Amino acid sequence: MDKKRVYTFGNGKAEGKADMRNLLGGKGANLAEMNLIGVPVPPGFTITTEVCQEYFDLGRDRVVELLKEDVEAAIKNIETLVNAKFGDVENPLLVSVRSGARASMPGMMDTILNLGLNDEVVEGLIRKTGNDRFVWDSYRRFVQMYGDVVLGMKPVNKEDIDPFEAIIEKVKQEAGVRLDNELSVDNLKDLVKRFKAAVKAQTGCDFPTSAVDQLWGAVMAVFDSWMNERAILYRKMEGIPAEWGTAVNVQAMVFGNMGNTSATGVCFSRDAATGENLFNGEYLINAQGEDVVAGVRTPQQITKIGSQRWAERAGISEEERASKYPSMEEAMPEIYNELNRLQQQLEDHYRDMQDMEFTVQEGKLWFLQTRNGKRTGRAMVKIAMDLLAEGKISEEEAVLRVEPNKLDELLHPVFDKKALLSAKVLTKGLPASPGAATGRIAFFADDAAKMAESGEPIILVRLETSPEDLAGMTVSEGILTARGGMTSHAAVVARGMGKCCVSGAGALHVDYKNRTVEIEGHEFKEGDWISLNGSTGEVYEGKVETRAAEMDADFAKLMDLADKYTKLKVRTNADTPHDAAIARSFGAVGIGLCRTEHMFFEGEKIKAMREMILAENQEDRVKALKKILPYQQDDFKGIFKAMDGFPVTVRLLDPPLHEFVPHDIAGQQAMADQMGVSIQKIQHRVEALCEANPMLGHRGCRLGNTYPEITEMQTRAILGACLELKKEGVKCFPEIMVPLTGILYEFQNQETVIRQAAEKLFEEKGDRIDFKVGTMIEIPRAALTADRIASRAEFFSFGTNDLTQMTFGYSRDDIASFLPVYLEKKILKVDPFQVLDQKGVGKLVRMATENGRAVRPDLKCGICGEHGGEPSSVKFCHRVGLNYVSCSPFRVPIARLAAAQAAIEDKK
Amino acid sequence: MDKKRVYTFGNGKAEGKADMRNLLGGKGANLAEMNLIGVPVPPGFTITTEVCQEYFDLGRDRVVELLKEDVEAAIKNIETLVNAKFGDVENPLLVSVRSGARASMPGMMDTILNLGLNDEVVEGLIRKTGNDRFVWDSYRRFVQMYGDVVLGMKPVNKEDIDPFEAIIEKVKQEAGVRLDNELSVDNLKDLVKRFKAAVKAQTGCDFPTSAVDQLWGAVMAVFDSWMNERAILYRKMEGIPAEWGTAVNVQAMVFGNMGNTSATGVCFSRDAATGENLFNGEYLINAQGEDVVAGVRTPQQITKIGSQRWAERAGISEEERASKYPSMEEAMPEIYNELNRLQQQLEDHYRDMQDMEFTVQEGKLWFLQTRNGKRTGRAMVKIAMDLLAEGKISEEEAVLRVEPNKLDELLHPVFDKKALLSAKVLTKGLPASPGAATGRIAFFADDAAKMAESGEPIILVRLETSPEDLAGMTVSEGILTARGGMTSHAAVVARGMGKCCVSGAGALHVDYKNRTVEIEGHEFKEGDWISLNGSTGEVYEGKVETRAAEMDADFAKLMDLADKYTKLKVRTNADTPHDAAIARSFGAVGIGLCRTEHMFFEGEKIKAMREMILAENQEDRVKALKKILPYQQDDFKGIFKAMDGFPVTVRLLDPPLHEFVPHDIAGQQAMADQMGVSIQKIQHRVEALCEANPMLGHRGCRLGNTYPEITEMQTRAILGACLELKKEGVKCFPEIMVPLTGILYEFQNQETVIRQAAEKLFEEKGDRIDFKVGTMIEIPRAALTADRIASRAEFFSFGTNDLTQMTFGYSRDDIASFLPVYLEKKILKVDPFQVLDQKGVGKLVRMATENGRAVRPDLKCGICGEHGGEPSSVKFCHRVGLNYVSCSPFRVPIARLAAAQAAIEDKK
Repeated sequence: MDKKRVYTFGNGKAEGKADMRNLLGGKGANLAEMNLIGVPVPPGFTITTEVCQEYFDLGRDRVVELLKEDVEAAIKNIETLVNAKFGDVENPLLVSVRSGARASMPGMMDTILNLGLNDEVVEGLIRKTGNDRFVWDSYRRFVQMYGDVVLGMKPVNKEDIDPFEAIIEKVKQEAGVRLDNELSVDNLKDLVKRFKAAVKAQTGCDFPTSAVDQLWGAVMAVFDSWMNERAILYRKMEGIPAEWGTAVNVQAMVFGNMGNTSATGVCFSRDAATGENLFNGEYLINAQGEDVVAGVRTPQQITKIGSQRWAERAGISEEERASKYPSMEEAMPEIYNELNRLQQQLEDHYRDMQDMEFTVQEGKLWFLQTRNGKRTGRAMVKIAMDLLAEGKISEEEAVLRVEPNKLDELLHPVFDKKALLSAKVLTKGLPASPGAATGRIAFFADDAAKMAESGEPIILVRLETSPEDLAGMTVSEGILTARGGMTSHAAVVARGMGKCCVSGAGALHVDYKNRTVEIEGHEFKEGDWISLNGSTGEVYEGKVETRAAEMDADFAKLMDLADKYTKLKVRTNADTPHDAAIARSFGAVGIGLCRTEHMFFEGEKIKAMREMILAENQEDRVKALKKILPYQQDDFKGIFKAMDGFPVTVRLLDPPLHEFVPHDIAGQQAMADQMGVSIQKIQHRVEALCEANPMLGHRGCRLGNTYPEITEMQTRAILGACLELKKEGVKCFPEIMVPLTGILYEFQNQETVIRQAAEKLFEEKGDRIDFKVGTMIEIPRAALTADRIASRAEFFSFGTNDLTQMTFGYSRDDIASFLPVYLEKKILKVDPFQVLDQKGVGKLVRMATENGRAVRPDLKCGICGEHGGEPSSVKFCHRVGLNYVSCSPFRVPIARLAAAQAAIEDKK
Repeated sequence: MDKKRVYTFGNGKAEGKADMRNLLGGKGANLAEMNLIGVPVPPGFTITTEVCQEYFDLGRDRVVELLKEDVEAAIKNIETLVNAKFGDVENPLLVSVRSGARASMPGMMDTILNLGLNDEVVEGLIRKTGNDRFVWDSYRRFVQMYGDVVLGMKPVNKEDIDPFEAIIEKVKQEAGVRLDNELSVDNLKDLVKRFKAAVKAQTGCDFPTSAVDQLWGAVMAVFDSWMNERAILYRKMEGIPAEWGTAVNVQAMVFGNMGNTSATGVCFSRDAATGENLFNGEYLINAQGEDVVAGVRTPQQITKIGSQRWAERAGISEEERASKYPSMEEAMPEIYNELNRLQQQLEDHYRDMQDMEFTVQEGKLWFLQTRNGKRTGRAMVKIAMDLLAEGKISEEEAVLRVEPNKLDELLHPVFDKKALLSAKVLTKGLPASPGAATGRIAFFADDAAKMAESGEPIILVRLETSPEDLAGMTVSEGILTARGGMTSHAAVVARGMGKCCVSGAGALHVDYKNRTVEIEGHEFKEGDWISLNGSTGEVYEGKVETRAAEMDADFAKLMDLADKYTKLKVRTNADTPHDAAIARSFGAVGIGLCRTEHMFFEGEKIKAMREMILAENQEDRVKALKKILPYQQDDFKGIFKAMDGFPVTVRLLDPPLHEFVPHDIAGQQAMADQMGVSIQKIQHRVEALCEANPMLGHRGCRLGNTYPEITEMQTRAILGACLELKKEGVKCFPEIMVPLTGILYEFQNQETVIRQAAEKLFEEKGDRIDFKVGTMIEIPRAALTADRIASRAEFFSFGTNDLTQMTFGYSRDDIASFLPVYLEKKILKVDPFQVLDQKGVGKLVRMATENGRAVRPDLKCGICGEHGGEPSSVKFCHRVGLNYVSCSPFRVPIARLAAAQAAIEDKK
């Protein structure tokens, strides 16, 4: 027997079902499934994905031959079910033709609606519907869609505009109107005429009038679209094989605008904003789908309670509401009851909140689509936990139901929705650190500190930030910078602090001298109000009220579940006791990255640090470092105490020394005065520290290897802190981390310095403590020679920020000049600083982990780049077999959830 | 039978031979070999490397037990042969004890001379030699050496100086003398006494007086030295297994200072400077080895002809020479004849020029050492070709005999030796591009051009150079920069031009404003004379005469031989017809890297380029680029013509755009005037182009992908040039190279632009030409995803400069701040920008080649970084299976030779 090529569905019957996705495509399988569970769907049929392959193998004619009989039978089936006839003038059946592949390929291939119309059918349909405007509008849309998709009516030259759009423009001009919907019926008729003439002129053929010819043309065009450039590129990027092919779905059209017994609407089985288990949605009587979203008429609520709530918010009296905006529950009670029953059935069947489209055509309800509904983070958590409580899904499913990134919404302040309505967007930068913030503008860290003393909220506005701005950032509600990407200093630090940040807002013209900033023609002075949305990158004029985040019982339940299933541990990147405490409250089980830069900055420390930088011999450097030691030891005490019982990985000094010296004349003069040397001496030193590419310069363990006394001092501070805490009963697990290792001997020399300093300290103090010495893997060479480095290093921590910079050859501070173009042209699918590049950077992580463990099986491996809080990257870390990920405190719950999902997906 | 542990040699007999290197160590095997071929060598014996292992396994006592009988017999054998007795007072045998491993480990382990001395033997020896000063000096040296090596007399604290040196200092102070050789015999006696007291004080033991005890102590100390820290580190770095162990060589001492029938000297079987086949050397009657090199007495020549030549150069009359400085040939004719016969025998035996040490003790000639002699590059070539012509070595051997790097000497000007004697070194920078240069200082490219017009030689002195300085570099004899490493802009460009360059001379303080440079307290003005040695990095005050390089027939013969055996092709990096022609004359078979940057710089081009950079839309950019097109096409025509018949790889525009705009106010104003816009506009654009890390910024194909019109224009210029040349009968093989690819789609988009532009051009011109499209592999990610990129790229060219930068995370412009420390601390053995890092960067090259060819078996792979001209890197490229290396024109012969050597070594 020949294989089956056409699967029909309709009236509660279907030849396919949900699990035949590979053969029928996602849409086709779903349409069949809805039929099978008794949901009314406009009848139709699906041509299988296998036929697509045959089309490319055998050609059009042979495929038409193979399909002809089955398609005719399937059309007949539709005609019977809807009591209309394909191509008939008086009672015409119109159909839609849509593609539908195994994997979703949104927008890649085209759709044709209203197929079956021609000049005569149009007249018949007008007679039937009494709505000549609707029919002619449908007709002109059909001709345009069909001309474009099937007949290849594209611009001749790249520079030309679409030929149909050109005609529309001309007709509108002649009619003296601006919008499409201002065109008269005669204008629409004129459009159709001109469209057809254009087709004739460009293709040499008449527009097909036969419904059957139209259908074959559309089916073949869908197959062709599988091989169009867009689709090929998309498949290549998503790794979808060309052999999969696309199915073709042909379905009877239904119309919600055939009078007062017709309607159309969208509905949700639960509240998409809050997650509340409350059926809701909007509809319009005598309307088509687009009317609901177009905003020309005010859509009405589906349920009475929804309608009442809506009226209350809009300030409309119950009388007015009931008369002008009745709910469907009130206006069409029977239909409503059926809709309500069916939506519950669909949710129960798909075991998730559904987002549905429906049309009522002359009193008959049809579902056009159902899919899992999009929802806010809060709703996502609530719905998953509710479905679990209702016994509808398992624990594992509940964990998998929540998109980890959506948790972010629950952790940061947001704008008050009402306040936002009247807020004015000034510009848009990069959404560098989520949350909402409003405050008064400060341009300098010290000004910010002073202004904050009065209790006023501050927004720190800068070209870019540097470690010198840390104190200012700490006191600010949010940070706005003109330069820098998603992993610029401002962005990374802000995320670490859980503070809102918009970075790289190129429209900002900051004038430090006059303490003003100009944004798209608006000038703001110090002290003026401004507001930031760090989740979208939007910058608002003036004060926009915010409200705090609140975590609820559902969130806690979800986190407990995640811990039950996870294998990967989640640590945090924290440099202060405050951050460490927040991270612990979010469930972090250690610090994966404690940066020590800030321990060289504040007050007396920076003075001593500058003395060290200015020193011309080791002796003077040691002297200066001795002054810093007690401060650092105190800092470490605070952190280890906050992480009592958990490991803390401390990274030795990493940034280039030039970050610690002033680059402006005034600062240099002040430093000269303080040090008692000439400003020339300061300037010479600053000049000597300047680098062409500081990212690739004298930093990381290159500092420790040139100035071992820094490493010595830091080792004493770390272990000295631990020894003191040991007396207080605090359990410390110090892990000393050498940054930027590229060569075994680089690490080995530092390790020797650390172990010698430790032994000396232990001897002095008459007590000792266990500690580990390991290294960041952030230089490609370190990853490539991981077997050598693991011969000495006790742990690896992948610094994927720098590893990404060097593997791609991208400076994250400069990427803004081409990243947008790369994303737009799809050269990059995502920013590799946000989502770990698994093919390149990930390959290094995998190689290094495997080769390192081949030499040292118990090598502890973790990741401490920004990627440690990004779900797909966390999952990759699980698959590679890392022991932990470490991320900003506010990303900890996200990482915990992603880690649990990875473990559950792994089990499957 | 128990295994043999001790191998004796002496008097023409030996139990070992040359090929027993693994068992006897290099020195032991060689001493045996000399005996076997009849060369008189002081008799002795070798304890095998296997005993070293036994020593560590079984311990000292057991090993002494195992060796005792054999060593006693071997000592007896020496006593018989030299007619003296070990430990005897009247006729004492003194011996030397030396280590000798399989592989040479220079300076890693210690030597003890004059072993067998004690207070009584000293007296006997004085009676025998009549030279109390010599004997006491030998004694104090022995006690010091033995105390240090065997008895462990090291400083107690790291900060202390050596305990023996401390005593010497004290005695000199007391005696009121400055130099060791000013010490009286009594002082020397005093030293021995104090040394022994110090040994007693620090170790608690008396200094051993028994010769046998001394011997065992020395043998065991040699074994111990195999495990000292220095040796372990050295082995680790060189990959020498610890199991190899070291042998111990014990040999009778001979003395050349026992009267007028004794002498000592060094000699060479050929002239080490010129390669001439002329026996030569120096000697001194009644002297020890050190006297020949110490310069206290004037050494005399060995041959009469040598002596006469020497006198002529020194302006000494024949009479004076013959009486005061007679040659050995004249003074000791019999000994001379034997020496002459033996040196020839040794050369014939080792089939290479020998560097020999000998001692005549009371009329008896002893050879102490023979080894292949060091020689200049010129001598190296001549000797290899002569030995080949003499039928002594094969072609392959002749090729292997020349160190490729030594060819450099033959290709560049050098200082006149006499002139150099009186020249004053000001400072030392990096030897960035070899050769010697002398000229007048210019600080700016345009000044240099003007000054050069008068025919004066120019040295361009700058903080660092940029592409704007190209014209100035072209007219200069040499370039001196204060900043930048071996692969800085100045260095790379200078090497490409074959021009002398010293870079990174940190002692320079350049004051552009006043047009002066201060070097270590000396100030130089524009127009002052200065001289550079680019082979050593030395900077000389004033004018130092230079002489040109000359290539001879031997060199040509060597190159022909190299071509006969090589597999790897050698191309050149050349950006101009001039460079291409030089490289062809040196044997390059194509251009592996033609940079196009300079084609945007000169005259009208830079104006159009700046218009392009200032353009705000594609249309204006295209307009500006159209102006550059004809210039570029002409440039390409010249290059393709010069490379007629060979492939030319053209790299598309690579550097960041900021290199094309002026960074000083005056330049910006000039540009503003020229463009007819405000200076603010220029400054805004320049500011926008500035990057934190330009090396990792908007450059390479990131430019071509954001501005495809640049790629389009360059494609037209390249292929347009080829089409025109085709008409003239020139054979062009263009290879268009996309720089800085990191992502497949980056390349793919550029490839599409190139192919479309090509088709359009071919259609317009009605003619076509074959071309390839490939990419640089210089981003780690490109190497990691080479299989993907090879699916589209037709060739790979490894840009190992940038690949090294990114794999190590080093900016070559900034490396000077830590590279010296890294080299000193042996964290790095060599500068990875000079010698390809095979473990890390090389791993990427290998992976990329293998993975690329797995997808595209005929993928052409080459290297075009600076490493393409460095011998060990070239050999690596051969082993990895690359098709070609490409290097500066002046490195082409070096690369050709290295490639041939790699192929010959491979066959073995």
